[in-house]
Amino acid sequence: MLEELKKVVYEANMLLPKYGLVTFTWGNVSGIDRESGLMVIKPSGVDYDKLTPEHMVVVDLEGNVVEGHLNPSSDTLTHIELYKAFPNIGGVVHTHSPWATSWAQAGRGIPCYGTTHADYLYGEVPGARCLTKEELDEGYEKNTGVLIVDVFKNNDYEAMPAVLCKNHGPFTWGKNPHEAVHNAVVLEECAKMAARCEMINPQVEPAPQYLQDKHYYRKHGANAYYGQREE
Amino acid sequence: MLEELKKVVYEANMLLPKYGLVTFTWGNVSGIDRESGLMVIKPSGVDYDKLTPEHMVVVDLEGNVVEGHLNPSSDTLTHIELYKAFPNIGGVVHTHSPWATSWAQAGRGIPCYGTTHADYLYGEVPGARCLTKEELDEGYEKNTGVLIVDVFKNNDYEAMPAVLCKNHGPFTWGKNPHEAVHNAVVLEECAKMAARCEMINPQVEPAPQYLQDKHYYRKHGANAYYGQREE
Amino acid sequence: MLEELKKVVYEANMLLPKYGLVTFTWGNVSGIDRESGLMVIKPSGVDYDKLTPEHMVVVDLEGNVVEGHLNPSSDTLTHIELYKAFPNIGGVVHTHSPWATSWAQAGRGIPCYGTTHADYLYGEVPGARCLTKEELDEGYEKNTGVLIVDVFKNNDYEAMPAVLCKNHGPFTWGKNPHEAVHNAVVLEECAKMAARCEMINPQVEPAPQYLQDKHYYRKHGANAYYGQREE
Amino acid sequence: MLEELKKVVYEANMLLPKYGLVTFTWGNVSGIDRESGLMVIKPSGVDYDKLTPEHMVVVDLEGNVVEGHLNPSSDTLTHIELYKAFPNIGGVVHTHSPWATSWAQAGRGIPCYGTTHADYLYGEVPGARCLTKEELDEGYEKNTGVLIVDVFKNNDYEAMPAVLCKNHGPFTWGKNPHEAVHNAVVLEECAKMAARCEMINPQVEPAPQYLQDKHYYRKHGANAYYGQREE
Repeated sequence: MLEELKKVVYEANMLLPKYGLVTFTWGNVSGIDRESGLMVIKPSGVDYDKLTPEHMVVVDLEGNVVEGHLNPSSDTLTHIELYKAFPNIGGVVHTHSPWATSWAQAGRGIPCYGTTHADYLYGEVPGARCLTKEELDEGYEKNTGVLIVDVFKNNDYEAMPAVLCKNHGPFTWGKNPHEAVHNAVVLEECAKMAARCEMINPQVEPAPQYLQDKHYYRKHGANAYYGQREE
Repeated sequence: MLEELKKVVYEANMLLPKYGLVTFTWGNVSGIDRESGLMVIKPSGVDYDKLTPEHMVVVDLEGNVVEGHLNPSSDTLTHIELYKAFPNIGGVVHTHSPWATSWAQAGRGIPCYGTTHADYLYGEVPGARCLTKEELDEGYEKNTGVLIVDVFKNNDYEAMPAVLCKNHGPFTWGKNPHEAVHNAVVLEECAKMAARCEMINPQVEPAPQYLQDKHYYRKHGANAYYGQREE
Repeated sequence: MLEELKKVVYEANMLLPKYGLVTFTWGNVSGIDRESGLMVIKPSGVDYDKLTPEHMVVVDLEGNVVEGHLNPSSDTLTHIELYKAFPNIGGVVHTHSPWATSWAQAGRGIPCYGTTHADYLYGEVPGARCLTKEELDEGYEKNTGVLIVDVFKNNDYEAMPAVLCKNHGPFTWGKNPHEAVHNAVVLEECAKMAARCEMINPQVEPAPQYLQDKHYYRKHGANAYYGQREE
Repeated sequence: MLEELKKVVYEANMLLPKYGLVTFTWGNVSGIDRESGLMVIKPSGVDYDKLTPEHMVVVDLEGNVVEGHLNPSSDTLTHIELYKAFPNIGGVVHTHSPWATSWAQAGRGIPCYGTTHADYLYGEVPGARCLTKEELDEGYEKNTGVLIVDVFKNNDYEAMPAVLCKNHGPFTWGKNPHEAVHNAVVLEECAKMAARCEMINPQVEPAPQYLQDKHYYRKHGANAYYGQREE
């Protein structure tokens, strides 16, 4: 079942250690098959060097395991909320990558200080507040997703494919699992440079809006001209 | 004698350079056989790339070498105090891993700023004060252990398997040598993110207690649901 | 056409990931054949691990593609402005290397704090201001080059082969593509040490001018005595 | 001539890139044969990946090349001053390792904040002031050595085998070239942890003197007990 997607999700998971985004098992990637409404996700707490495509777990959008012998990632219900609210995404990533997590722990969004950020993330990377005790007791992982979706009432999830959950860490997403991982790498790199940038100049201001627009639309939308035309 | 434990302790020692926790010989792992009351530990000052399981030294809990041709780690008497006071541990690790050591040198405990920390370390990682000259003259390594044990009069050593010795560095422990190394890696990662988190937001507050509880008990105790059920 | 130069430019591009200066495709190297007035540059948005010498694109100094099936780097027009204004350079590099980019985002030039810097970069590495919206709308990449050239009205482009574009990142150049990459590595290393140096001593002053002169002229000009005499 | 020492000096030089202490050719190691009064040193500006034992240059203590086809390191005269003033050393290392160089650029000595430092470096790592223009014009490299030696009028060069030259970088030494490299690695690690330690606690104080004494003499002198007895 969904053998191709399992392979894609497996490969996307294996990119996390390759890019230095995870220690031990602190990360997970999922992908969705929109036709069947089924999601494929990494099993919970399995070491990356023992992972195979066959380990991937298939769940439906209520969180029931449809196929697989292992428990799905403990963050499964968070992923599901994102797929339900963001119709154009095909992959979700969660990591504890150190710079993005440091910003998440600090409770700050990441300002857009330059074109590296503007090329992929349109505006300030938003933060989601910490859950209340009530929200947490009611359903920690599901309500983490609900809270993220709430942040995107005022944000375009396609132009800003990343969020920082307070006291926790980042989630990113994309058209497919690989793009979601790509955005996780971008986020980590921008988080690092933004922190150092503030260290070098504590009075630094975000990049002008027209520069942010230019870079974002150089890569996205009808008038994009970066890269090669896909055929 | 204790061939299996020697192999385990050897392998756990070799994880220290793998995870970037040691420079030269600045670290050591031990394991204990509770039945015989004998401890196996790395020899003192031997390079990791020359280490073999046969080099491991067997000592009793008075610190006498029972088997082995090499001197045991100079920190042997510290390890022994921990095994004597903490009945449920099976492995101890000491390193000079750079971020944890920077906190130890700074004389501060590491606040719990997020779930990465809360997943493994319950509350603020405590610091042990510097020994007085008298304590040091009386027995430096043994009294380092005595001081750590004293810190855990008010802390649960199973819920907080780590301590920072002032002007020195971290010790961690666990059910076995591998878990002790795992906790040393977690500590280094959390030490790094906590320092950066304070750099990004000097007014940052620790994570709410209910979030710390949630994450810790998601992974520990009777109601844990992270990972796979062991069979 | 220009097969030898394509190989050189290809190899210089491959040094960017080797030295840790690029993530994904965030960098490009070009070289010029002064006789024909043709430039060879990396194609836009092609992964480094898929790049071959045959992918290199030949363009003329109006930016027209003369040979090659791929789009040239989106920064092509910036490179061209530098070649037109700086007659003695043969290679140009653009990256988003993290420390240099952090300074660029911070909107500060990099003071010369020591001999590592002085050996290659004479004086403070200058910054180019952000383009105005008008300049950007008129021609973003071309005007980025125009602005850099303007900065060098008051700087010797041979003694200072680097610039930081505000909210963007660094450009470096050299007698050939390899020297331009070498200068990009030097710049990143000096950017890192300058930031840490200010962290260690916020009141630090630049190195005395006579020391900067000594080191620069130990390596450059008629009285240089560093290294081996070329034969 | 001095084939064995050439091999040793070559191998010690190759440890610099292995331990991440050098970028390009920014470092050099020498060794001395006290009997003949001849020094072996890396040639100037030769890439590490092209270096062979045969490239090593033999010079006398006036700086004359006695054997070798290449120019010796441009820092040769500095090394010579150290060998002349410090009779018990057999090896000298100069690098631009990033953390130690950041302290050197900052114009500060490195306080002893903990036992990692105290194990090898007794007290604060001293800084040598910047040369005056007159000293520099008279003989830059020789006077750099003279200035270092002057710093050690009030320091024990055996107990403190390291110095930071202002606006430049570190020199370290030891009984032989390998020990000198070992000290260069220790210095870089301690420089890193001291900077981070001050970031974590700006009011941090140096470790108590009795702890510094304990750790230094645990490894050095008649009563040392760290490591294995040499046979």
